[in-house]
Amino acid sequence: MPPALGDHGQTLGEAGEAATLARIFPRLPEADAALLGPGDDAAVLRAPDGRYVVTTDTMVHGPDFRRAWSSPHDLGWKAAATNLADVAAMGAVPTALVVALVAPPETPVSDLEAFADGLRDACAALAPGCGVVGGDLSASGTLTIAVTAFGDLQSREPVLRSGARPGDVVALAGRLGLAATGLLLLFERGVDADGIPDAAAAARLRAAAPGPVDAQLAPSPPIAAGPAAARARATAMLDVSDGLAIDARRIAAASGVALDLDPAAIAAIAGTGIDPRVALSGGEDHALLATFPPDAVLPPGFAPIGRVVEGAGLLVDGRPFDGRGGWDPYADWDGAAG
Amino acid sequence: MPPALGDHGQTLGEAGEAATLARIFPRLPEADAALLGPGDDAAVLRAPDGRYVVTTDTMVHGPDFRRAWSSPHDLGWKAAATNLADVAAMGAVPTALVVALVAPPETPVSDLEAFADGLRDACAALAPGCGVVGGDLSASGTLTIAVTAFGDLQSREPVLRSGARPGDVVALAGRLGLAATGLLLLFERGVDADGIPDAAAAARLRAAAPGPVDAQLAPSPPIAAGPAAARARATAMLDVSDGLAIDARRIAAASGVALDLDPAAIAAIAGTGIDPRVALSGGEDHALLATFPPDAVLPPGFAPIGRVVEGAGLLVDGRPFDGRGGWDPYADWDGAAG
Repeated sequence: MPPALGDHGQTLGEAGEAATLARIFPRLPEADAALLGPGDDAAVLRAPDGRYVVTTDTMVHGPDFRRAWSSPHDLGWKAAATNLADVAAMGAVPTALVVALVAPPETPVSDLEAFADGLRDACAALAPGCGVVGGDLSASGTLTIAVTAFGDLQSREPVLRSGARPGDVVALAGRLGLAATGLLLLFERGVDADGIPDAAAAARLRAAAPGPVDAQLAPSPPIAAGPAAARARATAMLDVSDGLAIDARRIAAASGVALDLDPAAIAAIAGTGIDPRVALSGGEDHALLATFPPDAVLPPGFAPIGRVVEGAGLLVDGRPFDGRGGWDPYADWDGAAG
Repeated sequence: MPPALGDHGQTLGEAGEAATLARIFPRLPEADAALLGPGDDAAVLRAPDGRYVVTTDTMVHGPDFRRAWSSPHDLGWKAAATNLADVAAMGAVPTALVVALVAPPETPVSDLEAFADGLRDACAALAPGCGVVGGDLSASGTLTIAVTAFGDLQSREPVLRSGARPGDVVALAGRLGLAATGLLLLFERGVDADGIPDAAAAARLRAAAPGPVDAQLAPSPPIAAGPAAARARATAMLDVSDGLAIDARRIAAASGVALDLDPAAIAAIAGTGIDPRVALSGGEDHALLATFPPDAVLPPGFAPIGRVVEGAGLLVDGRPFDGRGGWDPYADWDGAAG
C-alpha cells in the first residue's frame, strides 16, 4: 500500500523517496526568479543582467550541529541563512537555493517537513522572493545538508574581498560573538551530567538565553545589508563565518592592505555579556564585514569598526593582532556528534 | 609546522582545510563561463541569454558507491558525469559545477587530488569548457559528494519531460543496461570469498570486462547529444538514471501519453551480453531518452526505439509493461558500505 500523505509517524525508509518528496515539495518556498522549478531534470532560473552569483555550503551532523540542540526547523533555517549570507556578501540579492539532503533511513518524514519549513521561513524572513528550485534526497548514516545558493547582482559589479584601499572605512552589519557565545553556553549548559548534548537541557537554556542560542542555532544575518553595501560603493566585503579576526585578515590579504580595528567599536557591537575575545574570534554570526571609501555614507545597519591602512594583516587599536580564531573542520572537530 | 605542498602521505586531518584546498584548486578545470571563480564568498557566472539551468545530485558512500570498487578518480568522474547528463537532458550545454565534498579526516589528501583530476577529466571528455567554479570541504564519517551543475540554453527553450505528443518518435542516445550489468558483475566477481567488496577482485574484473565496469564506475553519457536533440526540436527529454522503464513512464506521465517501445530496438542498443530485462530496468547509464516530431531528422547518436501513442504508461511491443526497475535509496539500500 502506498503511504498515506500526512502520516507523520513514517520514516524515510518506510515512505520511500517519491512519497517523501510529495510531502516536502508543497512546503518549499517558490522563487520569483524561477522559470521552471523542481520536477524536471533541472530548474531554469532568470539571470536578468546576464550573470549570476553561485555559492555552496554544507552542514554535517557532528562537526556542524548536534541533533539534541538543533531542531529540524533550525537546520533548514541555518542551512538557508548561511548560504544567503554568502550571496549577500557579494552584494547580490539572493534568488534561489537548491538543497541536497542526505538523511538516515530512520529519519521521520515529519523531520523533513519541518526542515522544509525552516528553509521557507528563513527565506521569507531574510530574503523574500528567494525560494527552493531543486534538490536531491539520498540515504546515509550521517545527516548531511548541502545547499547551493544563487543571487542577482542587479547590474552592479560583485563586491570582492580584494578591493579594500588604505583610507577606507571598515564597517560591520550584524552581530559579533553572539553565535559563539551561544555555542559556549550549549556546551556548558545544554548537556547532561556526563557532558553529552541533551535536548531538554538545551530547551531550558534556549528559553533562558534566547539571544545567543538562537544566534547559534538559527542565525539571522543581515542579508539586505549586502546589496545595500554594494549600492553604497563598498570596496570589499565578506560574511564573517569563521570569526572577525580570521575574516578581517582575509580581506587584508586579498587586498594587500592591513585592517586596523577599534576595540571599543567591536565591544559596542558585541554588547554586554559577550567576551571581547569571543567578539574577535567567534564564528557563525555571518555578519557582513565591508570596507567603504572614506566619503561613503554607510548604509543602514552598518557601524564603523576601523580603518584600512598600509601594511599587512590585522591590527587592533594600531597594534598587530596575532590572536587566533575560527574553525577548521579537520583540525578542530573531535569526532563527536550527539 | 605548516604541511608541505606535495606531501602525498598526509591526511585531510593532518593537512587541514586551507592546505588541502591549496592542493586541489590548481587541479580543477576552469570554466569558460566563469567571470569570477573559487576564492571569494561566491562565484560569478555568465548567463548569456538571461537564463541558466541548475541541477544537483549527491553520491553517498554505501548506497551510491563502494570504496573498494570506485577509485577517487572514478568518484570525481562519475559525480561530474551524472550532473552533466541532467543539464544535457534539458537541452542545455553544461557550463560549470560547484562541488561539496564531505570526507572523513583520515582521507589521504592524495585521494582528493585524484578526485579533482576525475572532475577535470570528465569535464574535458564530456563537456569541454565546463569547469568547477566553487565548492565546500567538510568533515564527516561518511564520504559524501554533492555536485550542483549549471547550463546554458543558448536561447533555446528547455526540453521538458512534458512535451511528448502522440505520433512522436521515441529515440535514445547512449547505452542501455551496461552500467547495471557492470554492477551485477561487481557484486558477483568484485568481492572476496565472504561476498565483501574487494579492490583486487574488482581490478581483475575491470581488466576482464572494462565495458560494463567502466560504465558503472565512470560512465560517459552522451552530453553533446542533449543540445543536439534540442536543436532537432525534441519535444521531451530526460536522462535515464533510474532505468528505461521507470524513466519512460516519467515522460509518459508528465506528457499525458503512453510510450510504446520496440524490444528489438532496445536489444540492438543493449547489444549482446546484456539481458533485455536489464536493458529495460537497469539504471545509471545516463542515456538520453527523447521524443521528436514524426518529421524530425534524429541527430547523430540517437536511434529510434519506439513511438508516442495515446494512452498512459509504458507499452512494450504494443502491450502494457508493468515491470519494475530502478532504485530508491531508502527502500533499496541494505545499509552496507565497503
